[in-house]
Amino acid sequence: MDLKELHEKYEELLGTQVTISGWIKNHRKQKEFGFIDFSDGTCFKHLQLVYTNELSSFEEISKYPIGAAITVEGTLIKSEGSGQEYELKVENIKLEGDCDEDYPLQAKGRPTREFLREQAYIRPRTNLFQAVFKVRSVAAMAIHEYFQKNNYVYVHTPLLTTAACEDPDQMFKVTTLDLNNIKKVDGKIDWKEDLFNKATYITGSGQLQGETFALAFKKIYTFGPTFRTENSNTKTHANEFWMIEPEIAFCDLDKVMDIEEEMLKFIVKYVLDKCPEEIDFLNQFVDNTLKDKLTKLLASNFVRITHHDAITLLKESGVDFEFTPDYDDDIAKEHEKYITEHFNSPVFITNWPKEIKAWYMKENDDHKTVAAVDLEVPGAGELIGGSQREDNYEKLVARAKECNVAMETVDWYMNLRRFGGCYHSGFGMGFERLIMYLTGVENIRDVIPYPRTPGSCEY
Amino acid sequence: MDLKELHEKYEELLGTQVTISGWIKNHRKQKEFGFIDFSDGTCFKHLQLVYTNELSSFEEISKYPIGAAITVEGTLIKSEGSGQEYELKVENIKLEGDCDEDYPLQAKGRPTREFLREQAYIRPRTNLFQAVFKVRSVAAMAIHEYFQKNNYVYVHTPLLTTAACEDPDQMFKVTTLDLNNIKKVDGKIDWKEDLFNKATYITGSGQLQGETFALAFKKIYTFGPTFRTENSNTKTHANEFWMIEPEIAFCDLDKVMDIEEEMLKFIVKYVLDKCPEEIDFLNQFVDNTLKDKLTKLLASNFVRITHHDAITLLKESGVDFEFTPDYDDDIAKEHEKYITEHFNSPVFITNWPKEIKAWYMKENDDHKTVAAVDLEVPGAGELIGGSQREDNYEKLVARAKECNVAMETVDWYMNLRRFGGCYHSGFGMGFERLIMYLTGVENIRDVIPYPRTPGSCEY
Repeated sequence: MDLKELHEKYEELLGTQVTISGWIKNHRKQKEFGFIDFSDGTCFKHLQLVYTNELSSFEEISKYPIGAAITVEGTLIKSEGSGQEYELKVENIKLEGDCDEDYPLQAKGRPTREFLREQAYIRPRTNLFQAVFKVRSVAAMAIHEYFQKNNYVYVHTPLLTTAACEDPDQMFKVTTLDLNNIKKVDGKIDWKEDLFNKATYITGSGQLQGETFALAFKKIYTFGPTFRTENSNTKTHANEFWMIEPEIAFCDLDKVMDIEEEMLKFIVKYVLDKCPEEIDFLNQFVDNTLKDKLTKLLASNFVRITHHDAITLLKESGVDFEFTPDYDDDIAKEHEKYITEHFNSPVFITNWPKEIKAWYMKENDDHKTVAAVDLEVPGAGELIGGSQREDNYEKLVARAKECNVAMETVDWYMNLRRFGGCYHSGFGMGFERLIMYLTGVENIRDVIPYPRTPGSCEY
Repeated sequence: MDLKELHEKYEELLGTQVTISGWIKNHRKQKEFGFIDFSDGTCFKHLQLVYTNELSSFEEISKYPIGAAITVEGTLIKSEGSGQEYELKVENIKLEGDCDEDYPLQAKGRPTREFLREQAYIRPRTNLFQAVFKVRSVAAMAIHEYFQKNNYVYVHTPLLTTAACEDPDQMFKVTTLDLNNIKKVDGKIDWKEDLFNKATYITGSGQLQGETFALAFKKIYTFGPTFRTENSNTKTHANEFWMIEPEIAFCDLDKVMDIEEEMLKFIVKYVLDKCPEEIDFLNQFVDNTLKDKLTKLLASNFVRITHHDAITLLKESGVDFEFTPDYDDDIAKEHEKYITEHFNSPVFITNWPKEIKAWYMKENDDHKTVAAVDLEVPGAGELIGGSQREDNYEKLVARAKECNVAMETVDWYMNLRRFGGCYHSGFGMGFERLIMYLTGVENIRDVIPYPRTPGSCEY
């Protein structure tokens, strides 16, 4: 039986014998009895085990250390102590796996997150990471449920690619060549020895391939790992992360904002419903504005403002920003913060200067801006970036050339505009950003099971 | 409105005006009226559009080619023709995107799958690939639903890794070094310039990291892309594919077989329920044993047989196999076929010779075999491979050394056995194999949106 099931059915289980396997989270021993804080990880709430010196194995059990794996037989009884309604009166404990003395998680003191990062293979056993990684799992399911119930097709776009949605300089190279001995012919790499016979990368986005499926299924989404080589050691950058990239045919910028808002509310509600104990814990120990922030989001109507009006707002704010707001420029973190606090709501910022946005975005009639939209959320900044795509073949080709896109790798993408193309839009949501937003955890390294950051690819 | 919604609500929509966007799949023109076979890709069933020369735009509409994107306004009426119950009487059509004459999908003749593979960005618009990729999406959802409803935690194990679950020779190298100019110091690569400062690979399995989470959450699963460098141009090999790798603590080999059987039946039933039209189509045009095979699986009790007994069965079969069955050897494709046909059911083959299985599998008491299990299914051969894991620290370390595993990259994995280790098991299911089984499609290149195979990394 899972501990989750035991908790759910405890009323009917009271007075009956149960057998359950899991781990010792804490252990308090006294002369005549002992208490074990027990969990099998299937739910956030632990179970108290009580054993007494009536057991012939009393001495042995009292030596079982924190971290040990055990199988317990006992009777579920009403608890006489405070702190829990019921507990398990132990009749027998089998030691499944002992725990050596150098176990990194001991009762004394609370380990720092930095220490736990170095123990990445052990940290999911702590309360904090039980909460974070459970929320991560549930949020992933929320995403699948939202899109599937709305009839989107889930597409696995390729990770190995020769096509450049992002700048190839920002992509990892992938090869089967012997790096110690790369053969050259006339000064150029001899790709014959490589499995794919050419330069290959791991993708930074599935969008281009995603669009091909949107023009077949109308509504599609991707959800998979993505890679950037950015040499950036900040709290919000990782070199490997997961992204959700929906793409919708016959959809303009307004409609894509509707979808983003509906999706985000669905995910937040789903997580609040399915992880109440985890969210309570995170609210208490990580960010005490968390529950309030999430609940507010559900009730809010997201604000929509153009980039131009956002810059005007910043200029007229009277705030002495480190970076001066500029109509031709990006919006800095401090600006994002001001804007979301000003509106006290998530804010869509639309119609960005085309020079600072990607080549495939649809040019507006002013020839200066593109139909792009970033969603800024209170406390986390940019969460989602999307756009309507350029659907005019000539305009797209011209813009791609201006931006030095390697045309021979994306001719098929251009062709989509010649073969029943239509107005269509999509967006990308960084999954880790979402999890940081949902948990209040501030460092991306603490929401990824095994984070990959510059100089760090452990485990 | 989605076409799916229109079909579902057609009774209440009859007689009303609707607007819908999608593509022209076929077009038959006559003097006074024309028929358009219309779909937006949100469901398998198309819609017939009827337009007459009462429309001022009759001439124009009659020129719209196959593949063009259109938005139609019309009234849903009962159809007078045979073949459909209702149709849309066109009042207006807006051409959203024309389709050039070199469009690869024309009405004449049925394109071969080989031809369509070369048009991978267009092929999801055909009936066959609409069916295959819809089943792929629905089967992915079935997997998430099965594990989440059974309280598994979905874990994103890393793709970039320095740890060797599989042989590093079978893994792609990943680097940010300039391949044209790899600097060396004392004849060795100078990794200082690399983002991770060391040799890194894309993973062939998330199992090792998955186990660390199973020992925290009891039941976990992964579902993500996986890579092998195998230079194998067969119908069943791809270099990039998706895998599902569940891992369960306090679970032995028998129980893991129970889980595999329950999961597979859940997925098959889910797909039959959600994709009846797609399965009918595949049954008619791809494999006319498909529905029967899938329905039978639901009703069957999977057979369990040891590798030893399977070899005896093969030896006593009287069949003149190309590869002679051997108690110390693997089971060939022809053997798998014989065994599944003999039992007319999926078959679990257990307790394999340890020399032909992976180093982390639990040794049986005979010291010759390991607690491994492969699931063979009629018509597709090996679908799932699993094992109980070696949970004895000393045995595991000794076996890893025998198998030349790079110990310094997996010390943390070994440590799991010292820190509350327990008996645990897991399995890996190749997602593409599953989709081939569910669709009857015989070539792995036809169930992957953009397949990566030796010499081929297009799009």
